[in-house]
Amino acid sequence: MILLARFFCNSHRYSQVESSFDKKSDYRLKRKGHFEKKNRERISTYLYNMASPEIEEKLAPLRAAVKEYGDLVRSLKKNGVPKMDIDRAVAELKARKKILEECEIALIPKDVSFFDRLKFEDLLKQRFFYDQSFAIYGGVTGLYDFGPMGCAMKTNMINLWRNHFVLEENMLEVDCSVLTPETVLKASGHVDRFSDWMVKDLKNGECFRADHLIKNFAEKMCEDMKTPANVKEELKEVLAKLEGFNDADMHNVIVKYNIKSPITGNEVSEPIAFNLMFPTVIGPTGDFKAYLRPETAQGIFVNFKRLLEFNQGKLPFAAAQIGSGFRNEISPRQGLIRVREFTMCEIEHFVDPNNKSHPKFEQVQDYKLILFSACNQMDGASAETMSIGDAIAKKLVANETLGYYMVRVHKYLMRIGVDPKRLRFRQHLTNEMAHYACDCWDAEILTSYGWIECVGIADRACYDLSQHSKATGEKLVAEKVLSEPKTVQVIEAIPNKAAIGKIYKTEAKQIFARLEQLTSEEIEMLEKEIISTGNAKLHCEDKEVELQKDYITVKRYEKKVHTEEFYPSVIEPSFGIGRIMYSVLEHSFRQREGDEQRVYFALRPVVAPIKCSLLPISANPRFEPIMAAVRSELAKFSVSYKQDDSSGSLGRRYARTDAIGIPFGITVDFESESEPWTVTLRYSITMEQVRLKVSDVGKTVADLSSERMSWNEAQQIYPKFEQKSGS
Amino acid sequence: MILLARFFCNSHRYSQVESSFDKKSDYRLKRKGHFEKKNRERISTYLYNMASPEIEEKLAPLRAAVKEYGDLVRSLKKNGVPKMDIDRAVAELKARKKILEECEIALIPKDVSFFDRLKFEDLLKQRFFYDQSFAIYGGVTGLYDFGPMGCAMKTNMINLWRNHFVLEENMLEVDCSVLTPETVLKASGHVDRFSDWMVKDLKNGECFRADHLIKNFAEKMCEDMKTPANVKEELKEVLAKLEGFNDADMHNVIVKYNIKSPITGNEVSEPIAFNLMFPTVIGPTGDFKAYLRPETAQGIFVNFKRLLEFNQGKLPFAAAQIGSGFRNEISPRQGLIRVREFTMCEIEHFVDPNNKSHPKFEQVQDYKLILFSACNQMDGASAETMSIGDAIAKKLVANETLGYYMVRVHKYLMRIGVDPKRLRFRQHLTNEMAHYACDCWDAEILTSYGWIECVGIADRACYDLSQHSKATGEKLVAEKVLSEPKTVQVIEAIPNKAAIGKIYKTEAKQIFARLEQLTSEEIEMLEKEIISTGNAKLHCEDKEVELQKDYITVKRYEKKVHTEEFYPSVIEPSFGIGRIMYSVLEHSFRQREGDEQRVYFALRPVVAPIKCSLLPISANPRFEPIMAAVRSELAKFSVSYKQDDSSGSLGRRYARTDAIGIPFGITVDFESESEPWTVTLRYSITMEQVRLKVSDVGKTVADLSSERMSWNEAQQIYPKFEQKSGS
Repeated sequence: MILLARFFCNSHRYSQVESSFDKKSDYRLKRKGHFEKKNRERISTYLYNMASPEIEEKLAPLRAAVKEYGDLVRSLKKNGVPKMDIDRAVAELKARKKILEECEIALIPKDVSFFDRLKFEDLLKQRFFYDQSFAIYGGVTGLYDFGPMGCAMKTNMINLWRNHFVLEENMLEVDCSVLTPETVLKASGHVDRFSDWMVKDLKNGECFRADHLIKNFAEKMCEDMKTPANVKEELKEVLAKLEGFNDADMHNVIVKYNIKSPITGNEVSEPIAFNLMFPTVIGPTGDFKAYLRPETAQGIFVNFKRLLEFNQGKLPFAAAQIGSGFRNEISPRQGLIRVREFTMCEIEHFVDPNNKSHPKFEQVQDYKLILFSACNQMDGASAETMSIGDAIAKKLVANETLGYYMVRVHKYLMRIGVDPKRLRFRQHLTNEMAHYACDCWDAEILTSYGWIECVGIADRACYDLSQHSKATGEKLVAEKVLSEPKTVQVIEAIPNKAAIGKIYKTEAKQIFARLEQLTSEEIEMLEKEIISTGNAKLHCEDKEVELQKDYITVKRYEKKVHTEEFYPSVIEPSFGIGRIMYSVLEHSFRQREGDEQRVYFALRPVVAPIKCSLLPISANPRFEPIMAAVRSELAKFSVSYKQDDSSGSLGRRYARTDAIGIPFGITVDFESESEPWTVTLRYSITMEQVRLKVSDVGKTVADLSSERMSWNEAQQIYPKFEQKSGS
Repeated sequence: MILLARFFCNSHRYSQVESSFDKKSDYRLKRKGHFEKKNRERISTYLYNMASPEIEEKLAPLRAAVKEYGDLVRSLKKNGVPKMDIDRAVAELKARKKILEECEIALIPKDVSFFDRLKFEDLLKQRFFYDQSFAIYGGVTGLYDFGPMGCAMKTNMINLWRNHFVLEENMLEVDCSVLTPETVLKASGHVDRFSDWMVKDLKNGECFRADHLIKNFAEKMCEDMKTPANVKEELKEVLAKLEGFNDADMHNVIVKYNIKSPITGNEVSEPIAFNLMFPTVIGPTGDFKAYLRPETAQGIFVNFKRLLEFNQGKLPFAAAQIGSGFRNEISPRQGLIRVREFTMCEIEHFVDPNNKSHPKFEQVQDYKLILFSACNQMDGASAETMSIGDAIAKKLVANETLGYYMVRVHKYLMRIGVDPKRLRFRQHLTNEMAHYACDCWDAEILTSYGWIECVGIADRACYDLSQHSKATGEKLVAEKVLSEPKTVQVIEAIPNKAAIGKIYKTEAKQIFARLEQLTSEEIEMLEKEIISTGNAKLHCEDKEVELQKDYITVKRYEKKVHTEEFYPSVIEPSFGIGRIMYSVLEHSFRQREGDEQRVYFALRPVVAPIKCSLLPISANPRFEPIMAAVRSELAKFSVSYKQDDSSGSLGRRYARTDAIGIPFGITVDFESESEPWTVTLRYSITMEQVRLKVSDVGKTVADLSSERMSWNEAQQIYPKFEQKSGS
């Protein structure tokens, strides 16, 4: 999923997301020319408001076209036709979904209020929320540095995440290495499958993402008046199906249309898989290969035994990790949405695969979410609002634990200020999911880039733990007490220690250990081989040893067992902090009515980078003792503040602090001096003010900032203050 | 720096620190055999108590021997003798210092109470504070994963750091990329000079740190009865001077004593410099070389312009960064002290080089620190306690800003629980410092590994900003208003635009830009060359262009200027969080008197991983509503807790929570049920208890945990509670 998308279907998912973004923006851009560039910013607002009946009417036939193929796919699956036929139908289904989406975009009413991304980005840059890394060295695409504002906001989001998940759900938080040996990522599947398709300019070696190359070519051709209509039709189909293309499909298109490097005009290579992990080596010899972790999850899996022990052997439990992940994107664009280095928050909730109920599910069952189920996607229908309890009852969401986390994720996103109307949970279609996953829902947030996946919540079954078990021989399992004892057939290969010891000497110990590890199936096979050929080969620590007939005795017996070992299933919510932060900033961007130049961020106090401003009404030095007292009160409660004693008018200074999303403003004025000292406190969103004692200001702003107290409550407690001079 | 040590003297500093650790432990280990292994743990306690007069008497002649050479070095410097002679004297000085230190160790009284590192490490492992990464895959040296306890403690330390520095000192916190292009680290000097000397087994390629190889060989020889006395003497001298050896010195020793690989007996190569940065590549082409950052500081320097602008162009200001650093150590040992991946907190305080006063210095001038000045080190004298005001007045500490930070660092280390008696500030000797640094003090903490540098506080002058300016052509300078306007000579190379444009066409623009950038010196040289040869070469964006006589006019004039540009100086406090955390854990490790098995961590509440335990006096379900009310109160104030409703006795459950440093314990008992509900609150260090209302418990534990309230204050407010059953 995003960051998130588990790679097995990843190169695929990536191109899907990225190409659909590009499509939307490029489409508008090219159709209308750059003068109309701002139109593309309207998409978000449009989609937000799009439920109008006129629009729905126009979309109805397209929805029906999607449904037709959705139904077809279902019936093919039901009848168990060959996979290839299903895939073909799914490709057509997706093509129709895409046409539906494009039509939605084309229907944007011209008069909807729009989001001004240029002004927005200006403000972010100017107040150093974040900016390109190493800009004085020319910059590096896909790398960003967070300035004081962005860094504080990110810290606040992470602290809140920790409270909301780790603390409130009693999770075990860990902090594991970024450097990860190749063997670990080989077992997890990343070394073999975490890649995108790329083509190279055959003369100068320049690299392009294969799907981007095709997309750009096809779009250009479709816009060209000279392109024959039948070719346009073909290329439109290519564009619609591109997401599902493998290397051969893409190569065929490149050959058929003779697509060249757009820069040099040289021929390009066949698509080659480019692994998205950053390689390095540990230690001086150069032969200990490692990668920067592409996700934090693996650190949790390899610590499973320690964590289970820490939890006194009991399931379920959840572990969490907050940290950096790295992905060597071929050509990242789109700001914080697609980056090479990012902060993730991941949870791995370990649970009995036969009982995925959640003890706190009852508390959330009536909580309503906007769900865009696989079924609705296949029917061309819209997302629908539903309580999570109903969704579970209807088997739309696979299990309670998954459902519980969807609610917790939603609550978290609400707490940090995501607009609830621009948040939906989209279920993966069967062929989008990793082969081992049971169910997966992405929390998607609507921004001017379109719907972007910000949190993935997947039931990953027992894939990860069993993979690492296979690779290491360590049993990463939990144990449960059976409700009643069970009789099991035991089969053991008992070594003839004397005979083996005589032949294999020091190696004998390893052979004994290996024999103990063998599964029942392996023993049966070994036995069969010995019976038929008189001896058998045993793979033992990189060597093969030969076991003669009399080296082992196979023993079979029945045993009553009271406990059972099993691989826990893993439910994984995985958050991309950068993407979420970008979305919150976009949703919080405002222009003061009647003064478009006065832009600001209406951030929730809990995520605001700085909690309050501290402004003397004038630069008079007599205010300094009161200012000092306020600062000391704020420090006592660890409240961040920005003092602005410049000579600008109070209104101008308020505007400046509003711009960076400072929710509260403390002003020291001439009234402040009467004992006991008081100050005024202003809330930036409503611009209302109250007056309170200096000795109360630290605790009050701390409570307001942590949202233990609302502004309304503060207004109940403290007298309203009306400024004479407006602003 | 530690981690920190600025590489220019780094390989050197590293070996110094590492070898002295190894020396201490190996020395005891080998001298006494493994039965006496625990003795080495006594060092810390010994050094801690070492001020006894008997010991001082024995050390006096050794101290005098050190002083003799300290004086010699001083007089040589004063007389300006060649550097080589000074270096030789410094080497001898260090050898004598080392003998002094070893004698101190040898004098450990046998009866001092000792720190039991084995028990300590057991507890850390068992409660998963931290442990080796990827252990199920065999582990990787120098990489550690923090478990729930370690991770929470680290988070607390970092949050406190952020409050103590970023918030209280109004710093600009940033969060920059780990991936760093080679060009950036070339400019900073890391590519060329951030390395250790290594030798390779000539047959199998195995690598050893050259200084370790020599040390181990020499120590073994010295212990061997068969080694002739004169060889032993020679080798002792080698050991004493090893820290200062360069590659040639080490090679000579290896050849002279025919030192081979200790594993294969094969010959080894000459020492080769091994760069300690982890290499990688960005993007798919493979030719964009990059490294994982070896420190976070560079991210701040390359953002200097944005930060200065954010601060409205004003100096001084400080920027801070918390994040991971990476160093590819050749053969890391010593647990958290020497690792390949670590968390750093760094501050870069930018200040006018001509005015390094600090506005808040007055507030701290009477604060006392233990200072181990370069002078005292050269005199063989001990560290001494002194107020920072006196240290500045005596010019021991170079400037107020440096001194102010030393105090702030000390206060931070006190807040998180470092033992003040085991903390000193050691000044770098002149030849330990990077060539550009003015003064550097390390906060060293005494642990069972000896004195380890945990925070480095250096005045780095304007080295970093000027290096990046040179490399990029961006002026990383600040501007100040002159007290009175100044007349300056201006010299400009005015291009003849028509002439240049005609010849160089599109390149002309670059040439004009380049001419504008030239320094006065460069223009003078250009002019001279043109006069003498008729034309001159100008280096312009990777090309050389030829300027004919009539292409430029050199113009000279006087100008009155009111402002002046300058490179700010940088004062840099740099913290190694892992080392500090290790030290705090060691200083907090306790055994209950009379019950050595009952070990625990007496952590300061503010860093404790979990703030309180929640224990029902028995598993009676009637307590559940009260427990739920307590949990909700704790959640409201984001207080972490651990519920233990297992059937063990209360005493046993307390012991379990004490072990992991939980400072407060809430117990629900039968008295709790009378309205209004109450609970008892226990402080683990003193085992005292009070009783308070459930509705007060969240706020009270939050205040106690953040140390806004002390336990004594809590005892004033709430009635004492005496448990009948002891514990």
